[in-house]
Amino acid sequence: MSALIFPIQEFETRLSHVQQELRSRELSAMLVHTPENIFYLTGYQSPGYYMYQCLIVPAEGKPKLVLRRGELANVGTYSCLPLDQVSVYEDTNDPIAMTADTVRELGVPAGRIGVETGSWFLQVRVYMKLETLLGDQYVLSDAQGTVEKFRVIKSPGELAYIREACKVADASMQAGLDAIAVGANEDEAAAAMFSAMILAGGEYMGMEPFISSGYRSGNMHAAWGHKVIGSGETLLLEVAGARNRYHGALMRAAHTGTPSDEVKRASEVCIASLNAALEAVKPGVTAGEVDQACRGVIEKAGMYDMFRKRTGYSIGVAFAPDWGEGHIMSLQRDDERVLKPGMVFHIPPALRVPNQFGVGFSETLVVTESGCEILTSLPRELTVIGG
Amino acid sequence: MSALIFPIQEFETRLSHVQQELRSRELSAMLVHTPENIFYLTGYQSPGYYMYQCLIVPAEGKPKLVLRRGELANVGTYSCLPLDQVSVYEDTNDPIAMTADTVRELGVPAGRIGVETGSWFLQVRVYMKLETLLGDQYVLSDAQGTVEKFRVIKSPGELAYIREACKVADASMQAGLDAIAVGANEDEAAAAMFSAMILAGGEYMGMEPFISSGYRSGNMHAAWGHKVIGSGETLLLEVAGARNRYHGALMRAAHTGTPSDEVKRASEVCIASLNAALEAVKPGVTAGEVDQACRGVIEKAGMYDMFRKRTGYSIGVAFAPDWGEGHIMSLQRDDERVLKPGMVFHIPPALRVPNQFGVGFSETLVVTESGCEILTSLPRELTVIGG
Repeated sequence: MSALIFPIQEFETRLSHVQQELRSRELSAMLVHTPENIFYLTGYQSPGYYMYQCLIVPAEGKPKLVLRRGELANVGTYSCLPLDQVSVYEDTNDPIAMTADTVRELGVPAGRIGVETGSWFLQVRVYMKLETLLGDQYVLSDAQGTVEKFRVIKSPGELAYIREACKVADASMQAGLDAIAVGANEDEAAAAMFSAMILAGGEYMGMEPFISSGYRSGNMHAAWGHKVIGSGETLLLEVAGARNRYHGALMRAAHTGTPSDEVKRASEVCIASLNAALEAVKPGVTAGEVDQACRGVIEKAGMYDMFRKRTGYSIGVAFAPDWGEGHIMSLQRDDERVLKPGMVFHIPPALRVPNQFGVGFSETLVVTESGCEILTSLPRELTVIGG
Repeated sequence: MSALIFPIQEFETRLSHVQQELRSRELSAMLVHTPENIFYLTGYQSPGYYMYQCLIVPAEGKPKLVLRRGELANVGTYSCLPLDQVSVYEDTNDPIAMTADTVRELGVPAGRIGVETGSWFLQVRVYMKLETLLGDQYVLSDAQGTVEKFRVIKSPGELAYIREACKVADASMQAGLDAIAVGANEDEAAAAMFSAMILAGGEYMGMEPFISSGYRSGNMHAAWGHKVIGSGETLLLEVAGARNRYHGALMRAAHTGTPSDEVKRASEVCIASLNAALEAVKPGVTAGEVDQACRGVIEKAGMYDMFRKRTGYSIGVAFAPDWGEGHIMSLQRDDERVLKPGMVFHIPPALRVPNQFGVGFSETLVVTESGCEILTSLPRELTVIGG
């Protein structure tokens, strides 16, 4: 019944990298509250992370997970942790006090303890309480990004799951495109996307698929909205597949009936901007340079006001409410971080006129030694549907 | 293209309640970072809340929303805010600095400013930066729960959407139960649940449906897991429907072939515990008393070790990663909060033996003047499927 998704050595290597980092930063330990980071270090996963969970990683020795009792079986199923490395709390216990107690029980030496000050799942009041409870021996210190630094480069094993996730995204997108017809409802296409995603092996996802038609396609993040698809409308679809928590995403646009010159031109510029970004991706270039390549095409076409966003973002392990890793690395204006082999990005340029229309096209790709390999595989074109 | 889901007066009343509360607590303003609370006060919604957003509510006068530029069209579509009550930031701007600047621009008097220290979406580093940027005139003060205090009682308009959401949950559950067959895959039943949910009008949801079979049903929060459904297995299904961000949830168990005495007894006890909770619900009783009614049945049957969790939780507005409002109010041991008419709860007692089997049954209900009205509507029984 165990489903450890990587050889135990991969988890050991990840932990040892993080512990080395803690020692080099003179941190006695780190409290990991981010579900993606707990998963990365242990394999543990559950949609139940809306309840408190914390992985205590000492700079030396074995980590310990503070977890809701009900989730204990998921430790055995998914993680590399033996049960004696888990402290469970009852629903009416105080898990913050348990975290502080566990830090002491682990014998963490007095000193600085790293915490993730940018994590959604370390609330301010939890931080303050930890500070109070640990304050006699420990000082909390910002360690945001300690685990993410390693997550941003994907191992061959991780890439294998991202490839699977991209196939799931492909299947879902194709089903969505196939379900589009004049007179059909956006909801029907959304149902087809979900169904195909799951039947292709997709798992619970960081964020749900988007599909919008007509004026709604001009609005960012428009989910299916009960609207009947009319003739002469653009449709914008975006979906991320998930396999073992690894995500791959894909965006495509479609049109019912012959597209206007405006829609055709926007699609051409959008695809050209995506192509320019893909050509720019290689080890050694900066995130800002890739953004410049993409944005440059759009600016040259005089369409910057329809764009006005980042070019792309890192993608990998995700729990809701986001499928991306944009907080780890984004392809955005003037960003000087350097691309390296094994990084994976989703690049979704989109051109929108709010409440009128929108088109967008994307790929998920991995940076290789010489450039990039594209992992999603649908035709990079505006799908035109009779109407 | 506007889709304001309540009369403008309802939003005005909500805002005036919160502002009154701020004045009575001598707060000059409140920074609202919780997506559910921003929605509650303005109607604004988007799955894009993984990017920073903050509603600045002065104790007197008009609130202002700090938002990512791309989301602006969703303000017009969903919210009661005119565009001059929105400050948009570009992806490479600093939205925290914009928040502090906007507080000053609004002329918020020097003094204490409330923040939600229990919100996932006010990260520690954001809190610290706000403290630094506002520190010359303002002191940040814990105001967690200020909006939730009102959210916990549902208006007739809110109840109407929760009723719709419960119908969506019913439809999804029925489709899941109908898809169960020996030799079918959990994934097929999950696909059926998603599809039926959306075709019944369901929208993007706080958390995805759960379905697990056999040994997997013994583990909390087991999502579909590619497993073929065998003969003589229990299945545990749970789903929340969403309508206009309002949720209603439902849990049911099924069995392929004739259930063993153990499974039959667990189902009977579980349903009896649910019935006991439902009978206990009325205005004036405490959350702890409802928990005691439910737990008491389970304890009396000697099955407490299979339960060990809270009895239920408030449910209403939700954005991922949770469909519930357990942080606002839970039906749990010794909880002294008092039930009032208009509160809505999901009560899902479940009995599990990890890695062996699990059963569970639930209803979503609203507290009425004299007891409760159950809003979900499927037969409260173990569904037995030939096999």
